[in-house]
Amino acid sequence: MLGSCLNNVREKSPLVHNITNYVTVNDVANAILAAGASPIMADEPDDAYEITAICNALNINIGTLNSRTITSMFRAGQRASELGHALLLDPVGAGASSLRTDTAVKLMKEIKFDVIRGNASEIKTLALGSGTTHGVDADKADAVSDSNLAFMAKFVRDFAKSTGSIIALTGAIDLVADSERCYAIRNGRPEMGRITGTGCMLSGITAAFIAANPHNKLEACAAAVCMMGAAGETGYSHLKEYEGNSTYRNKIIDAIYNMTPENLERGAKYEVIE
Amino acid sequence: MLGSCLNNVREKSPLVHNITNYVTVNDVANAILAAGASPIMADEPDDAYEITAICNALNINIGTLNSRTITSMFRAGQRASELGHALLLDPVGAGASSLRTDTAVKLMKEIKFDVIRGNASEIKTLALGSGTTHGVDADKADAVSDSNLAFMAKFVRDFAKSTGSIIALTGAIDLVADSERCYAIRNGRPEMGRITGTGCMLSGITAAFIAANPHNKLEACAAAVCMMGAAGETGYSHLKEYEGNSTYRNKIIDAIYNMTPENLERGAKYEVIE
Amino acid sequence: MLGSCLNNVREKSPLVHNITNYVTVNDVANAILAAGASPIMADEPDDAYEITAICNALNINIGTLNSRTITSMFRAGQRASELGHALLLDPVGAGASSLRTDTAVKLMKEIKFDVIRGNASEIKTLALGSGTTHGVDADKADAVSDSNLAFMAKFVRDFAKSTGSIIALTGAIDLVADSERCYAIRNGRPEMGRITGTGCMLSGITAAFIAANPHNKLEACAAAVCMMGAAGETGYSHLKEYEGNSTYRNKIIDAIYNMTPENLERGAKYEVIE
Repeated sequence: MLGSCLNNVREKSPLVHNITNYVTVNDVANAILAAGASPIMADEPDDAYEITAICNALNINIGTLNSRTITSMFRAGQRASELGHALLLDPVGAGASSLRTDTAVKLMKEIKFDVIRGNASEIKTLALGSGTTHGVDADKADAVSDSNLAFMAKFVRDFAKSTGSIIALTGAIDLVADSERCYAIRNGRPEMGRITGTGCMLSGITAAFIAANPHNKLEACAAAVCMMGAAGETGYSHLKEYEGNSTYRNKIIDAIYNMTPENLERGAKYEVIE
Repeated sequence: MLGSCLNNVREKSPLVHNITNYVTVNDVANAILAAGASPIMADEPDDAYEITAICNALNINIGTLNSRTITSMFRAGQRASELGHALLLDPVGAGASSLRTDTAVKLMKEIKFDVIRGNASEIKTLALGSGTTHGVDADKADAVSDSNLAFMAKFVRDFAKSTGSIIALTGAIDLVADSERCYAIRNGRPEMGRITGTGCMLSGITAAFIAANPHNKLEACAAAVCMMGAAGETGYSHLKEYEGNSTYRNKIIDAIYNMTPENLERGAKYEVIE
Repeated sequence: MLGSCLNNVREKSPLVHNITNYVTVNDVANAILAAGASPIMADEPDDAYEITAICNALNINIGTLNSRTITSMFRAGQRASELGHALLLDPVGAGASSLRTDTAVKLMKEIKFDVIRGNASEIKTLALGSGTTHGVDADKADAVSDSNLAFMAKFVRDFAKSTGSIIALTGAIDLVADSERCYAIRNGRPEMGRITGTGCMLSGITAAFIAANPHNKLEACAAAVCMMGAAGETGYSHLKEYEGNSTYRNKIIDAIYNMTPENLERGAKYEVIE
């Protein structure tokens, strides 16, 4: 099932419009290409609005938002929504500043996202109106662990219910949930946290998976999250002892490029909590 | 001849001003350095205008254009034109939105470019006022192939004639033409299409080649295109089976860095169609 | 001593706010992570102002400045100053345009920086109101060499005295000075000049070192400069003959990631000139 989701990305090659931060944008583009889809970036309001129409998915990432790109996010988001495109929000740094929190909250009010993907601190901020933060990284106090897994699974299911979006809360254990089911995913490596942009790349890829699997969005989202983690494991296995986070970044994207549906099926580590 | 064009880049090390998109800008900078030239980026209108004057070439890439950077493109372009600098336009996404198409058309009207470099869909859009598009990638229907080679060679020569610019239409077969001669170049690998920014990198390098070979612009442009393709072949030969598009990107830039005039002469695969 | 400075970065993991150029921003983020600290980027004025408060250091890099980000630099700089955060200025391209020179001069007047880090041409421009430039690279005429070392050491000490900032003038020989002492550092490789962003990465890392070593800023700055150079040496030792500047960039960040306090102590090559 997860493998066929990847297969659909490769066969349909959806065009993913990304209004995203300039820190990790190149990796997002290459990760989307590695997954088998095509990226495009536009963030001037008129251009973003028009480009949206020729795409299949929209990935909004508020990482280095500014007044111009915020306008683009709303205009592109509303158009993508009218056109029934796959829509993903990555609320980078929600909780770290009021502009980020308020923009994410307002986007969620005005646009129905298929998926909201963030770290534990960002999702808690959006769900509870509070949450600690360590900049754009999750605070350790917010992490999902074996001891709070059932509680956190219910938390994301509830947030999925109230928003009508699939929630992907990613970290050491990833949770991907709609209002009824929650995938708890254990792929990945802790060293991925020492690379900038693994979350941003995952958001771009997830948007492609949702676009290519419109009748199967929860599984598609879980497949994307498993693939990113599995690519992190594969990439790590090819690292030499003197290599570090920069080469690791390349090897993760490479592993996405070489991931087969069979590898994804075999490598995915998850349980479903209902 | 192609080799001596590269030699001139290495010896003169032209300073290339790039007003370019933030998706691939880092690779453009490293590719220009790899070729032996120096990059600089400025996109605030006053800064772009002033920086232009200390440079030898201007590379305008409309990939993530916005109202501020469009102003910079026109001001820098006009100044570079007055100063007789090498001038290149990369109309990324022309045909994908009216802002992109209109900006490219207006730039071509107001500024005389030495080279216009784009994919088949972008060049068709600019030449014919129409053309299909797959975002920032060329549509397959527009591709140059053995069956339409003579027709397409005439098309780019005609467009070169009407614009007074060298036209570099790049894809599986690259065409580099002025009004009289057309190089058909068969370097490169299809896997280069799975990397973001190979076109953008080529544009930056081409601007450097034009600046370093002012009396020999058509050959210089062909040399840059051959070098990019040959670097794609060399880089590919060093890829391990588990490596993918991200490592490939690095290896292409590495291959440009290590390209010698002799390698370029030996590796270039082209015919000239008159 | 230098090793313990690195140790403090790893233990405290300071959060470094970077208002920086979009050319090298991804490498800056990964270099900061490699050093053991955390990066965050914000450049919309309100966001930059608020994000500053949750950070430990601010790295202002004027590489692709625009009117919006200049406002952010002043607002974030003033707030970081009020809060006693580590503050670094990287005057990229000072001397290459009046906007860059004037912005750097004005920032220095209104904000007290712990460190000003630039190449020889940039520092000369700021100290003397003049200085040649080759775009964002230093002019060879300005370089520090064995023949002018004593003179240049006095020059940076004097500039440190007049500004109240530590001056880090980096090149083939790096000088790191306060008003009394000057470290002359001979780590690094000439090939680092063929990579875009080694200076920008160093600035980001230095901001982290200053934040983690508030009572020992001069040594902390020297430690960061030695580490960048030593990483350049280590990275180079792992390069294959067919690899070039793009892979080298990755290997330098990797070497920072794997640098131990012991390696740094052992590898640092410097003398102190009083």
